[in-house]
Amino acid sequence: MKPIDHADATPEVQAVYDDIQQTRGVPDVNNFWKMAANHPATLRRTWDSLKEVMAPGAVDVLTKEMIFLAVSITNGCTYCIRSHEAAARKAGMSDAQHGELLAVVGMANETNRLANGYQVPVDAALLDR
Amino acid sequence: MKPIDHADATPEVQAVYDDIQQTRGVPDVNNFWKMAANHPATLRRTWDSLKEVMAPGAVDVLTKEMIFLAVSITNGCTYCIRSHEAAARKAGMSDAQHGELLAVVGMANETNRLANGYQVPVDAALLDR
Amino acid sequence: MKPIDHADATPEVQAVYDDIQQTRGVPDVNNFWKMAANHPATLRRTWDSLKEVMAPGAVDVLTKEMIFLAVSITNGCTYCIRSHEAAARKAGMSDAQHGELLAVVGMANETNRLANGYQVPVDAALLDR
Amino acid sequence: MKPIDHADATPEVQAVYDDIQQTRGVPDVNNFWKMAANHPATLRRTWDSLKEVMAPGAVDVLTKEMIFLAVSITNGCTYCIRSHEAAARKAGMSDAQHGELLAVVGMANETNRLANGYQVPVDAALLDR
Amino acid sequence: MKPIDHADATPEVQAVYDDIQQTRGVPDVNNFWKMAANHPATLRRTWDSLKEVMAPGAVDVLTKEMIFLAVSITNGCTYCIRSHEAAARKAGMSDAQHGELLAVVGMANETNRLANGYQVPVDAALLDR
Amino acid sequence: MKPIDHADATPEVQAVYDDIQQTRGVPDVNNFWKMAANHPATLRRTWDSLKEVMAPGAVDVLTKEMIFLAVSITNGCTYCIRSHEAAARKAGMSDAQHGELLAVVGMANETNRLANGYQVPVDAALLDR
Repeated sequence: MKPIDHADATPEVQAVYDDIQQTRGVPDVNNFWKMAANHPATLRRTWDSLKEVMAPGAVDVLTKEMIFLAVSITNGCTYCIRSHEAAARKAGMSDAQHGELLAVVGMANETNRLANGYQVPVDAALLDR
Repeated sequence: MKPIDHADATPEVQAVYDDIQQTRGVPDVNNFWKMAANHPATLRRTWDSLKEVMAPGAVDVLTKEMIFLAVSITNGCTYCIRSHEAAARKAGMSDAQHGELLAVVGMANETNRLANGYQVPVDAALLDR
Repeated sequence: MKPIDHADATPEVQAVYDDIQQTRGVPDVNNFWKMAANHPATLRRTWDSLKEVMAPGAVDVLTKEMIFLAVSITNGCTYCIRSHEAAARKAGMSDAQHGELLAVVGMANETNRLANGYQVPVDAALLDR
Repeated sequence: MKPIDHADATPEVQAVYDDIQQTRGVPDVNNFWKMAANHPATLRRTWDSLKEVMAPGAVDVLTKEMIFLAVSITNGCTYCIRSHEAAARKAGMSDAQHGELLAVVGMANETNRLANGYQVPVDAALLDR
Repeated sequence: MKPIDHADATPEVQAVYDDIQQTRGVPDVNNFWKMAANHPATLRRTWDSLKEVMAPGAVDVLTKEMIFLAVSITNGCTYCIRSHEAAARKAGMSDAQHGELLAVVGMANETNRLANGYQVPVDAALLDR
Repeated sequence: MKPIDHADATPEVQAVYDDIQQTRGVPDVNNFWKMAANHPATLRRTWDSLKEVMAPGAVDVLTKEMIFLAVSITNGCTYCIRSHEAAARKAGMSDAQHGELLAVVGMANETNRLANGYQVPVDAALLDR
């Protein structure tokens, strides 16, 4: 499959691209969207969902992007790490915040395996919640 | 292996338990620490690291706990999900924030696989950083 | 380690290469096999297993390749995604089927984490099975 | 968080429950939906997406459920394994098909790691696609 | 599916059970094999492969079981953690070795994500190999 | 972020680099450390932990590096696979040992998913431990 540029896209796909560009204030969409456009229903559904989920709400945009980046690092998705690190930077992430995020992600992945390895029984107080 | 209670622990382990209890303001440590105490060097090192990494800094404690929870959900570690959900709640996470966190974690895991599946080439603008 | 070509291989390895080429109707084996040949027992055992498991049975070859691709996308294995996407295409996967496969893989990875995050208790009806 | 039953739900949530029940021909919704209902926007969005993605299309419902199950097994999500195994059975999966599915998922997870471990270079023919 | 006991198994399955019992010097096989017996081809193939791979060779049995346990902890497979911890203990793993194994698995999972998060470029010296 | 060379580093970072070089007997540190140096606290903490965990103890250095490599292969971290394969080779891993390691990692990842897929109940004997 090849990325589909705006000029080569169907009107249905162009409408999604236009909404992404307007919502994000960018002149063109990333390759992620140009590849997803190979299946227009996936493009539209994924954008609609992402637009809703990543909008500011009870959690601010920077925190949402940092959470997205933490998941992408855990899964080892290079494309996602690079694009959401850029998005987090755009939302205001400083060098110090980036460094602390990586430290937390590292520790979480370590202690997740210590909990697995020790087969830690869940504390009664944690089950009562 | 069995969890090691304070009364049955060596002075070295008790000193770590005491520091956890004082730092967190809790009367007893969780099972995670009582299991890690089976290898005292792991107990001490993990606590020292976690204490440093999870302290407030450029990123506040609530955000750090939400990132920790996001990683634990992605890895499917039940113990870690329950304990860090409790920690995030203690740090002030509301129902609405919890709901948005889960939505972001879900979308990140979905789009990570769409990026993999479409083998999306990294945009030049993302590589230039 | 380097890939081992047919001309440089031992008779034992050549026999496996020949069986792969005949079974699949290809003039040469992929790099996966040329690398596995560095440990001939792994080459032989993996090919014997794959040949048995991927043969048409109660599940047809196209569906098996689509399942293989879904797992490879979830694990983020680039080599496996590219080789099994090619195998699925060879077995008849259309653009539309590929697009729907990716959509299902994305949704499964999302809802797996929602189930983790909400710590959903298993319904009694699902346990009775 | 607790599962939210139909009787205790808001009209917005009840409307989603009703659509799930009608679409699937079941008298009640699974715990997955009753937990997701704690964040109504997630409930609605996830159901709308799942309904669209899992509908018969170029790929039939049984194959889609088998792909969903393969991903859930790979991720080790117990709830998802049990619910989508049930869904696949309902869509017609036989014992023999189930057995072959598990064999393919196992082999894919094995060879994904052999490809990683041998750092297999992507064949030129696979990049040309 | 239900576990299949020796008395209820076909002669083909019983022959595999007998080989497992003799090879391992145990009076009965674990539930893993009793479940796999629901698909006799998977039972036979998996046992044949495991018997070959886990036999002493250039790597001794204890080290092989410790590697198996490390993978199972990383994947969070409870059944596998418990059964291969038991196997490693039977092969001679001490408390101290177990503790160090868990510490290494934890650190590897942490630094894997730091390498992902920092998008560390591979050193030229590592590529030359 | 860019790798930070010794000449451009702060005295705090240089001290860590010097300790790595002396401990390992190498003239320069790998890119992993040069990237981690962007957050000096992470550099220092990670090195202190790794130095302690990877030192010879009840488990020898070769076995520790093989466990580290097994985890890195399972997680699909290319940088980590290449650097810890090199470290294991330096610690004495032979071609035959490498081949057997990869075979064990492959089988563990396969049977982990068979255990998930069959939802194998934990044997009573394994719980009694």
